[in-house]
Amino acid sequence: MQRASKRKMSSPCGEIAHGLEDVLIKTTSISDIDGERGILWYRGYRIEDLARNSTYEEVAYLLLYGKLPTRGELDEFTSRLAKNRDLNPATVEVLKNLAYAHPMFAAEAAIATEGAFDDDNRKLSESLRTGKYGDEEKALAYRIAEKLVAKMATIVAYHYRLSRGLEPVRPREDLPHAANFLYLMFGKMPERLAVRGLDLYLILHADHEVPASTLAAQVVASTLSDLYSSIAAAVAALKGPLHGGANEAVVRTYLEIGDPSRAKSIVEAATKPGGPKLMGVGHRVYKAYDPRARILKDFARDYMTKYGDRDNLFAIAVAIEQEVLSLPYFRQRRLYPNVDFWSGIVLYYLGIPYEYYTPLFAVSRVVGWVAHILEYWDNNRIFRPRACYVGPHDLKYVPINERA
Amino acid sequence: MQRASKRKMSSPCGEIAHGLEDVLIKTTSISDIDGERGILWYRGYRIEDLARNSTYEEVAYLLLYGKLPTRGELDEFTSRLAKNRDLNPATVEVLKNLAYAHPMFAAEAAIATEGAFDDDNRKLSESLRTGKYGDEEKALAYRIAEKLVAKMATIVAYHYRLSRGLEPVRPREDLPHAANFLYLMFGKMPERLAVRGLDLYLILHADHEVPASTLAAQVVASTLSDLYSSIAAAVAALKGPLHGGANEAVVRTYLEIGDPSRAKSIVEAATKPGGPKLMGVGHRVYKAYDPRARILKDFARDYMTKYGDRDNLFAIAVAIEQEVLSLPYFRQRRLYPNVDFWSGIVLYYLGIPYEYYTPLFAVSRVVGWVAHILEYWDNNRIFRPRACYVGPHDLKYVPINERA
Repeated sequence: MQRASKRKMSSPCGEIAHGLEDVLIKTTSISDIDGERGILWYRGYRIEDLARNSTYEEVAYLLLYGKLPTRGELDEFTSRLAKNRDLNPATVEVLKNLAYAHPMFAAEAAIATEGAFDDDNRKLSESLRTGKYGDEEKALAYRIAEKLVAKMATIVAYHYRLSRGLEPVRPREDLPHAANFLYLMFGKMPERLAVRGLDLYLILHADHEVPASTLAAQVVASTLSDLYSSIAAAVAALKGPLHGGANEAVVRTYLEIGDPSRAKSIVEAATKPGGPKLMGVGHRVYKAYDPRARILKDFARDYMTKYGDRDNLFAIAVAIEQEVLSLPYFRQRRLYPNVDFWSGIVLYYLGIPYEYYTPLFAVSRVVGWVAHILEYWDNNRIFRPRACYVGPHDLKYVPINERA
Repeated sequence: MQRASKRKMSSPCGEIAHGLEDVLIKTTSISDIDGERGILWYRGYRIEDLARNSTYEEVAYLLLYGKLPTRGELDEFTSRLAKNRDLNPATVEVLKNLAYAHPMFAAEAAIATEGAFDDDNRKLSESLRTGKYGDEEKALAYRIAEKLVAKMATIVAYHYRLSRGLEPVRPREDLPHAANFLYLMFGKMPERLAVRGLDLYLILHADHEVPASTLAAQVVASTLSDLYSSIAAAVAALKGPLHGGANEAVVRTYLEIGDPSRAKSIVEAATKPGGPKLMGVGHRVYKAYDPRARILKDFARDYMTKYGDRDNLFAIAVAIEQEVLSLPYFRQRRLYPNVDFWSGIVLYYLGIPYEYYTPLFAVSRVVGWVAHILEYWDNNRIFRPRACYVGPHDLKYVPINERA
């Protein structure tokens, strides 16, 4: 099913844009990908520069507001994020009811709940209902966007604790985003290198143009629904194993392999017709080495050097990568390790349980989603594609007792 | 904002498909619209034939399974729907936490919760994760689809009762879908004509090709997320005032007008540049009288003849319609009364409170959403459009203390 044809599909009504491949839904100045050369820019900055010099807060500001903040702007933004971390009591109750559910379902429900009781959201919705979207409404929309960035982390961390039968820990306003998240999750001050690893992960996943989740967010927002509902829809899309769930599958595969010496046979099996798909390799847009993968690989090496290669994961990944990069099968198809190839290892090292990999993706990407919604609202038009009808017309309604 | 340009947008990368206008996302055999002539077919049957002869259950079967059921098939289908009406206790708890929230938020959260604890859904997700979608998985998917159709009605009716501080009433297996819904909502056996009105409403809203909500459902489903998450996203999209919220606005406008004699000035005001938009008039696809509107108008006349024209709504609507049909402004632009023009009046007559108009739309459309997802899964491809990047590249990262 995942391997559906990539060929152009034609129909009696003309060409079908299957999966909307190559269809342009808008102009953007948020992020850009050069898939041929393997380059990713946020607002014009290379991802490598941001990964080296920046923090998640600074990158979130950049994506939302279009420029790097001054010290004063960053301090104020950081403080607003920190102050918005708490959840509505109703949301905590909803999370308790979903404590033993998959965290992505819990996140969907929690975001809808948080949105239902946010007065800013209600106020903005009332204006949008009458077609009003001026400076005041935009200011409201940005305020809500910041809340979503802040609260997504709390939602995920709270769910983790509730799922383990632990009391949620109150967010700490004095901690940066990544450190606070690890503190919320594990209930103790995280180590410096763990914070750096999570911060890197969050920076590298913050935006990636318009994949399915970002499309879903914009489709919902285009009806002038609200920001929370749009983000809940994005979470629903990210949940899919073809989208946000890949890095979990990668780590599971590595663990099953167990030893670097088995890499060759695994990789070769994937080149056989009908063979198992090799997770974390190849990308719809990148036809080169994914720049995010390189950065996470470097971090994984640093982390492993300091703390050891837990379960041989780094060694196995390197062995698989070498096979992939050397086999003509992958070179000819331009299939390279993608971000999921290395991100799962980093999260595994940090002690994040599998089922929180995709929620953590949402903790990062939420800022890209809201940035794309706000950009789309500047030139909003409701999404309304068409389907080509290929069935019969004007069938005769036969009374039920006369049906064969 | 709603009046964004409908002209083609160009970009350095080529033409932008703004709102995906005229973009074909798939072939379909579920429903077809002839916007020029004002015709709507479900699976090849004219909507007028179905409205005259059918019930919501029969139409739901038709949309899901592609043919009208035999008596035996319909009885079994009806019985399965009736048996699936109950909600998980966790979902009821979540609805209680959202009792004083807008019902569309509550529906989003409730659907996610229901999905989180559905074993069929979990089983199907596990298969999809490994790329398996054979006969067994399809049977599971259809079973889940039927559950969603059954439960959406319960979710909305339960929320109504909780929002009024009333105890939810248990669903009745012996009642048809429309009658059971009114029973769940108002706690007593509904009158025959009210049941007929709601059944008509449910039949007429059950599918409409691929508007924003149906697109959102398919975008989420295309990632192989799950049916519940996909439907939650569709609800999120339907919530928007540009999509599902229009009939509420129509009724509010009529009530404000208060008297048919004021219709002329209201309609004329809408023809002035920058004048207020006339709700319920014009449609992105129909350039003729909406066939669903005609059927609902006829029902509204019947109902009013028997029970009286509550708050003058029918008289006001007729007066507005006459103006719209006679003014060259509307004829030239091919703006005709659409389904929302008349559906709000029917729901108002039936005693449904405004804020449940859009949820009721979801109670009907859920079957169209699941039918489109199942159709898309037969030839699944993840949605991944592109955006045209128009910002700068390779900006120099300036350290924060040197920023202006």
